Amino acid sequence: MQKCRLNPKDQLPLDLLIPDLAAVCSYALEESGKQVRPALAYLAFSTITPGSINLVPVSALELIHTYSLIHDDLPAMDDDDMRRGKPSLHKAFDEATAILVGDGLQARAFELLADAPDLSVEQKVRMIKVLAQASGFEGMVGGQYIDIQAVDSDMTLEELQAMHEMKTGALVRASLALGGIAANGTDEQLAALDEYGKHIGLAFQVVDDILDVEGDAEALGKTAGKDAEANKPTYVKLLGLDGAKAEAKRLLQAAIDALEMFGDSADQLRDLARYIVERDR
Amino acid sequence: MQKCRLNPKDQLPLDLLIPDLAAVCSYALEESGKQVRPALAYLAFSTITPGSINLVPVSALELIHTYSLIHDDLPAMDDDDMRRGKPSLHKAFDEATAILVGDGLQARAFELLADAPDLSVEQKVRMIKVLAQASGFEGMVGGQYIDIQAVDSDMTLEELQAMHEMKTGALVRASLALGGIAANGTDEQLAALDEYGKHIGLAFQVVDDILDVEGDAEALGKTAGKDAEANKPTYVKLLGLDGAKAEAKRLLQAAIDALEMFGDSADQLRDLARYIVERDR
Repeated sequence: MQKCRLNPKDQLPLDLLIPDLAAVCSYALEESGKQVRPALAYLAFSTITPGSINLVPVSALELIHTYSLIHDDLPAMDDDDMRRGKPSLHKAFDEATAILVGDGLQARAFELLADAPDLSVEQKVRMIKVLAQASGFEGMVGGQYIDIQAVDSDMTLEELQAMHEMKTGALVRASLALGGIAANGTDEQLAALDEYGKHIGLAFQVVDDILDVEGDAEALGKTAGKDAEANKPTYVKLLGLDGAKAEAKRLLQAAIDALEMFGDSADQLRDLARYIVERDR
Repeated sequence: MQKCRLNPKDQLPLDLLIPDLAAVCSYALEESGKQVRPALAYLAFSTITPGSINLVPVSALELIHTYSLIHDDLPAMDDDDMRRGKPSLHKAFDEATAILVGDGLQARAFELLADAPDLSVEQKVRMIKVLAQASGFEGMVGGQYIDIQAVDSDMTLEELQAMHEMKTGALVRASLALGGIAANGTDEQLAALDEYGKHIGLAFQVVDDILDVEGDAEALGKTAGKDAEANKPTYVKLLGLDGAKAEAKRLLQAAIDALEMFGDSADQLRDLARYIVERDR
């Protein structure tokens, strides 16, 4: 699969008035994680239009994702000490810094989109709306809220799915939408990408739950067994390990089927879907 | 002074998928505070163009301000139990909820602007950029970071001023800019409004420091004496009470002078500047 590495650090004004804060931002962004969302935006773009994508929307996605991890790791939330193979931000610095850096990264994501070169104002407004909805109450934030309330509760499979569609699925779909909007995709093309995104978003979470049981902390770069320990509802609990693996396969196939209209030009998106389901971290 | 009351609650999708979260948002927004920022946006607009303003940018400002108060009140930050005359959000609910609701309100502010009726895409992009810069690392978030680091430290008057220009001044100036952009103001008009905003932003903070010493908790709706107790640098500490009062007067006059080009049509902005300096809460 074609590499899509980028450095969101380059998109931050790190010559801030505050050198300390610049150092914290560097810490937050220097380990870039799997970069699934940037890869999705990039591949959505190249599936519709061969050529080089404007990387700004891609960076905005990674800033939103990074801010959400920083806040999710806080003691009042998931209370995670490790992230991307090193101490999470509130452990390396302190809680106030983690709250503020998360807040600032969110603002910076929208600033980046508003200020992006080579995008029309129509594209920018559309992207900002998509990203704000996906990351707000009706998307990522709302899903995280349900997740936190769900500790020690019984959830049906439908409720678990609805939560993940908000918590992680919305930003996955927004990633594809941003790439598609950057490529001036048609409504039909954007709808097909969205259908693909819906299935890989869920597949991603099913595999996360499997890895939380089967994975090891070193490969994951975060504490394994955390969700089970916190008594959170997971796919593995509801479907069993084999059932969860079968569900991941079903979702993979549905994702691949959604890309039919694109023919060969969506091969990299198909490869990414397979990577999401077959990854070990 | 003409009233500019609005209800940012109306700008939230409170029929969210999550009734509990809707209740939290209502709690966060039902006591609307002084609404200085919405008033500034409204008056900037009406100073340039008599007529009714599109209220969307105004609501976006109040959402950003409210999110910042919710996060600032957290135990890891200013640790304030009272806000707007009632328990702050993390006391009424819990810390995780306060972090998430703040995050969601920020996203919603940008979504509102992107989705605003009666604004051109050019106006929207410009407003989003202004609001994101003012609320991010180079503005509100950066200023709050400096403020938290500044506990028990000695600051010069210049450093204190620079901090407040970021922490509260940036959003005050953004409020005026949003109103001015909505009114299609000229560069000269926007520059005059910005100059006015720079001075009232500082005046607002000087008066806050005075009220922190002289005010009572009931009128303020928050704990008085908090800053002195936390050993934070304040104007009163650096200038004395009389010196701070003289500085507030000087800033008021500079703010009024900045409005000269508008003639009588800026009378309400002049009244607002006087209110900011003469308020008792």
